[in-house]
Amino acid sequence: MPKISEKGLAMPASPIRKLVPFAEAAKKRGTKIYHLNIGQPDIETPEEALSAIRNSGLKVIEYSHSAGVESYRKKLAAYYSSHGIEVSFEDVIITTGGSEALQMGMMTCLNPGDEIIIPEPFYANYISFAMAAGAKVVPVKTSIDDGFSLPPIETFEQLITPRTKAILISNPGNPTGMIYGEAELRKLRELVIRHDLYLFSDEVYREFCYDGMQFFSAMQLEGLENNVILIDSVSKRYSMCGARIGAFVSRNKGVMETVMKFAQARLSPPTFGQIAGEAALSTPQTYFDKVVKEYVHRRDVLVKGLNEIPGVFCPKPSGAFYAMAKLPINNSDHFCRWLLESFSHNGATVMLAPATGFYASEGSGKNEVRIGYVLNAEDLQMSTEIIREALLVYPNPQS
Amino acid sequence: MPKISEKGLAMPASPIRKLVPFAEAAKKRGTKIYHLNIGQPDIETPEEALSAIRNSGLKVIEYSHSAGVESYRKKLAAYYSSHGIEVSFEDVIITTGGSEALQMGMMTCLNPGDEIIIPEPFYANYISFAMAAGAKVVPVKTSIDDGFSLPPIETFEQLITPRTKAILISNPGNPTGMIYGEAELRKLRELVIRHDLYLFSDEVYREFCYDGMQFFSAMQLEGLENNVILIDSVSKRYSMCGARIGAFVSRNKGVMETVMKFAQARLSPPTFGQIAGEAALSTPQTYFDKVVKEYVHRRDVLVKGLNEIPGVFCPKPSGAFYAMAKLPINNSDHFCRWLLESFSHNGATVMLAPATGFYASEGSGKNEVRIGYVLNAEDLQMSTEIIREALLVYPNPQS
Repeated sequence: MPKISEKGLAMPASPIRKLVPFAEAAKKRGTKIYHLNIGQPDIETPEEALSAIRNSGLKVIEYSHSAGVESYRKKLAAYYSSHGIEVSFEDVIITTGGSEALQMGMMTCLNPGDEIIIPEPFYANYISFAMAAGAKVVPVKTSIDDGFSLPPIETFEQLITPRTKAILISNPGNPTGMIYGEAELRKLRELVIRHDLYLFSDEVYREFCYDGMQFFSAMQLEGLENNVILIDSVSKRYSMCGARIGAFVSRNKGVMETVMKFAQARLSPPTFGQIAGEAALSTPQTYFDKVVKEYVHRRDVLVKGLNEIPGVFCPKPSGAFYAMAKLPINNSDHFCRWLLESFSHNGATVMLAPATGFYASEGSGKNEVRIGYVLNAEDLQMSTEIIREALLVYPNPQS
Repeated sequence: MPKISEKGLAMPASPIRKLVPFAEAAKKRGTKIYHLNIGQPDIETPEEALSAIRNSGLKVIEYSHSAGVESYRKKLAAYYSSHGIEVSFEDVIITTGGSEALQMGMMTCLNPGDEIIIPEPFYANYISFAMAAGAKVVPVKTSIDDGFSLPPIETFEQLITPRTKAILISNPGNPTGMIYGEAELRKLRELVIRHDLYLFSDEVYREFCYDGMQFFSAMQLEGLENNVILIDSVSKRYSMCGARIGAFVSRNKGVMETVMKFAQARLSPPTFGQIAGEAALSTPQTYFDKVVKEYVHRRDVLVKGLNEIPGVFCPKPSGAFYAMAKLPINNSDHFCRWLLESFSHNGATVMLAPATGFYASEGSGKNEVRIGYVLNAEDLQMSTEIIREALLVYPNPQS
């Protein structure tokens, strides 16, 4: 039998996916599951996007330009401008989700063996995209105890080697819900200039900033035209993850020219998703106001409910729709599986994401879980009650 | 300025894309262009697919399962079965076009430095996907003079080294229009078994077999369960290239498990494309009968028209919708550019694909072009007339 590639063997399997069979078995037993493990919001996609799809009138579903539909790219550039990000449509390539933007970006910027520094915990698939490019993720630790704030620049400096090529941040952060403000980004700016690095900024949760927090984009940092790469996506903004539409944005001409070669190789991004994405740009502000209000309410219910449980600590996230919680447990993978396999409260249980999947440092995240507040407040209230009851009887293994 | 990756710099730019600015300039001058350079058919997408999109009733455009919608995978398995390919839905992962299936397959099966043998000329993007995996394409030459038939197995044997890991065929072939029959595939079977290789079979033109040719899939070869990887796509079959839906199909469990890890990293294939793809499986046979009849007519007009031009030779393709033609020229890149830049006949010209882009061997394809018969017969007739007139006055450079 011919061999699997080394890269393929090393590629991590999703820790959440490992739980799926246990969730399915629980459902078969008739247990209701509150899915707090996912990043798929229950919020409705804007009607603007849905009706554009219904009424496209297309007779032939053709390829688009490899960089995406030009009218969409132009409107996107205007959208960015309205958010203080000055780019032309030629600085924008439409991608198949933020995922493809990350993948093309890493292929374009990183050689095999190069290192990319990422504040930890981070979105698990960053590892996969780096591995596909043959690059190595170097985590810089942040702590739940101070709400995952950015470590001092000296901590980054200590990790820099001759192979360091890039820094990657997610802002607002998945899984932390943390927002890096202008002051923190300015510190990163110094570092990026000093070591001539790429700065990848994954800003797919841009619209989800709470408590009056003002979003500041890495693209707004002056003098970093050749360094900053913005990763974007319509998935969360318009609750249309399945459209698979994102964007790769940079003012670095050489980078754009190279990404374009990867874009041409895969021909084009999805046509229907682009129709939805372009139409979604006309979504009224009232949609976002309503969505933000709903998420703030959910967050408040969740965070309050969690922090009332003895031994649980959940820092209040100011963005995105995730919260990280520290629980009185030793092995979050075991706990999350146990919740599905062996526990129910009034016929229901919760599915959580073990935080171990968001850490590259071995052994980290074993007493943390990520909770997506993508369910309504009542379900979240019920979920915290389930977690409280579960912790009362959980046979916490001593490892 | 931080450096671009070596892979990114080496990635080839599409030779057709290089012609685009000249086509745009010609259009601006008012010249009509017959686009014979593309693989985007003008045939209408089946109404089944279009109406499924219009009537999906979706309120939230959610992620699908990373392997694709299960009902679609099950119907696809049934479709394959009706074509003599016995697979279960678990042998099928839905991908973002055939492109992604190729990319994931190469990442899964090839280590950096590994070699993949491909009959030449071949679909240009095979090189890009191999390069992204760090692998090397080893071309095995075929000739327009015998209609690009598969070389004897001894020729393959001579190219095999300890790094040879796979063979890739496109059947029916792009750009050749060649169909490999059962006898030829059986020869490849021996080779694959003898050297324990993967056999990638790109069968996206399966439905486009003419003159009573019976399609035989590499998946029908017995004893190759762990070797054969089928690459598929809805793009050509249903004239819906923009749906970006393909499939990765294999009975090798280890390969499927590994591809699944890459599939999870990019979350899911496009939701709307899958809706269209699933509905398109109900397209009546009459649609294909009509389409095949139309392509045969176009092919006959094109091939006859070309072969009537002095010095031109165009073997009659039996599948897909491309023809390769040998022209009395020394430099097809120059000729194709000249057609756009300096020639018109009754206010019109043609855009062709220089064949150099389909050869890995330096210097090959310089007197050949690829012509897609994706225009109606009248336009194709006009196009051959333009080519005839152009060749009369073309200042053929001596290199």
